[in-house]
Amino acid sequence: MTPAQPCRGIDVHAHVLPARFPAYLPEPALPGWPSMADAHACHRHVMIDGKIYRTVSDRCWDPALRLADLQAMGLDLQVLSPMPELFSYWLPAPAANELLRYINDQIAEMVAASDGHLAGLGAVPLQDMDRALAELHRVMTELGFAGVEIGSNINGRPIGHPDFAPFFAQAAALNAAVFVHAVRPEMGRVIGPGPLQQALGYPSEIGLAAASCITGQLMTRHPALRIAFSHGGGTLGLLLPRLEQACHVFPAIRDAVPTSPTAAARRMFYDSLVFDTATLRHLTGQFGDTQIMLGTDYPFNFHDRTPVARVEEAFGDQAVRDRLTRGNASRFLGRA
Amino acid sequence: MTPAQPCRGIDVHAHVLPARFPAYLPEPALPGWPSMADAHACHRHVMIDGKIYRTVSDRCWDPALRLADLQAMGLDLQVLSPMPELFSYWLPAPAANELLRYINDQIAEMVAASDGHLAGLGAVPLQDMDRALAELHRVMTELGFAGVEIGSNINGRPIGHPDFAPFFAQAAALNAAVFVHAVRPEMGRVIGPGPLQQALGYPSEIGLAAASCITGQLMTRHPALRIAFSHGGGTLGLLLPRLEQACHVFPAIRDAVPTSPTAAARRMFYDSLVFDTATLRHLTGQFGDTQIMLGTDYPFNFHDRTPVARVEEAFGDQAVRDRLTRGNASRFLGRA
Repeated sequence: MTPAQPCRGIDVHAHVLPARFPAYLPEPALPGWPSMADAHACHRHVMIDGKIYRTVSDRCWDPALRLADLQAMGLDLQVLSPMPELFSYWLPAPAANELLRYINDQIAEMVAASDGHLAGLGAVPLQDMDRALAELHRVMTELGFAGVEIGSNINGRPIGHPDFAPFFAQAAALNAAVFVHAVRPEMGRVIGPGPLQQALGYPSEIGLAAASCITGQLMTRHPALRIAFSHGGGTLGLLLPRLEQACHVFPAIRDAVPTSPTAAARRMFYDSLVFDTATLRHLTGQFGDTQIMLGTDYPFNFHDRTPVARVEEAFGDQAVRDRLTRGNASRFLGRA
Repeated sequence: MTPAQPCRGIDVHAHVLPARFPAYLPEPALPGWPSMADAHACHRHVMIDGKIYRTVSDRCWDPALRLADLQAMGLDLQVLSPMPELFSYWLPAPAANELLRYINDQIAEMVAASDGHLAGLGAVPLQDMDRALAELHRVMTELGFAGVEIGSNINGRPIGHPDFAPFFAQAAALNAAVFVHAVRPEMGRVIGPGPLQQALGYPSEIGLAAASCITGQLMTRHPALRIAFSHGGGTLGLLLPRLEQACHVFPAIRDAVPTSPTAAARRMFYDSLVFDTATLRHLTGQFGDTQIMLGTDYPFNFHDRTPVARVEEAFGDQAVRDRLTRGNASRFLGRA
């Protein structure tokens, strides 16, 4: 690639699907195991349990198409992670392990074909800690990934729960960046059509997941951990001042969260995927201009097509722009 | 009262409990029916099902103590509403109706003893629409209230659900202000001690309730309605830009929400209870400086003791300060 724009940004939030999934061979068929079906030109249907889960374009698996789009978007590096519905936490662990190994291998192939313009985040079967740790070790040492993408909850349990401490300890030890993506949010308070899951459920979900890491004292337990949250941390920015105040008011909260929630939040990373300049500016003030990185959700239809322009509109200072478009991501990925 | 400060603010978010509750006479005892037990000096325990639900001070029911505090806080008018756990949506409707009539009558007595410095918001048993409409009519026509306080959900159903259309239609017809308060939030994604219900559950809950009013097209269905949300609208400010973008991306959402979510949000009111100057400033930008009003949560321990100073710190313009401290509340209450 040759530069199309002066900015050479890094996108930490972009998804992949493989062109096809392996068949699940044992009988009977396993509920939740995905497959691909042809759709219109350049598109396939992701089929789950006989229904179309989502229709996706060949940009999901074709590195050449992706690299051309990266150039047009002013990006020099994109970090690939699986579509969250592929986390497979709800499948039996051996089947999930098999599927995730396949997907991680597919990501490794795309990275290998990218001339350094793609990097990988794997997925691991967190419903089974032994298998998760083994696959984490494999993607870091054999596949050379930058880290892993994990869900905001594992079968309903938010990731700040102490059950997941062994995973975070090993991620820190292996120098793996951890990107947390909203998945399967609570939807009991949402009125309206299904895609509101992404519009309202996802930001609520990732905000509470980030809050669970603060109230669960994740950064105190794992000070070397590098962790990031999708969708600008969702609602965290508005939960944080009230949580901070609650520490002064409620002895039970102060005992559980002895360090400042705001200080903890400013040690975690967030993507810029908020679709609003004033919001990006506000979150940068809340979390610090050292903690926010480009995220696009490419290539899905709900993706930010102008991530660099959003940062440039929000901030005139070139040093701040550089941090948000690439410097912070380099630190998160362990490249700086 | 004589002025202690030049600002004569209006606080729209303050709670009451009666000094005692009536006994529930039928046998057996009704689970969830509250009673009072003596605690330390000037305090009582709210007892529910044999346990202390909360320990509260006599400021909850004594107008003289409250008026002295109002003066010290620079407030000229405080709008009283029941502690949300008294909504009683989860009680059988006849029992809830009896309890809420008693509480509304107690609020009316406090207002009558206040020389115009207190106003009332009643509560109505929304689990039974006929009884709710009758009590709404009674508090507006017989008790002279400014409106009603309702919960963010009624036994799990968010208030944007079309089931509640008859209530909102009558509220608009009777010129009743509707103040929505978070109650009994989903807590499946929270890790930590019980009071995190108020710290994290409440803002997530009220944000989604406000979003349900937008996706349920409440202001389109009831254009004359005046509705306000507690805790600065909770997480709504961060949900809104993503919901707005989703309308451009998903045909199903655009069909359900044909008008701009942001425009709808700017027709609703919010209190200022966010404990952070930068957040107050950001939300004022999102919702408009005509839509935010003082709210304190007085007299509970998690209340804002300096609501006027927060506004003055956030905004230098006297016209904006006046709107936030009293002008917007006057419009919400139907006094302007």
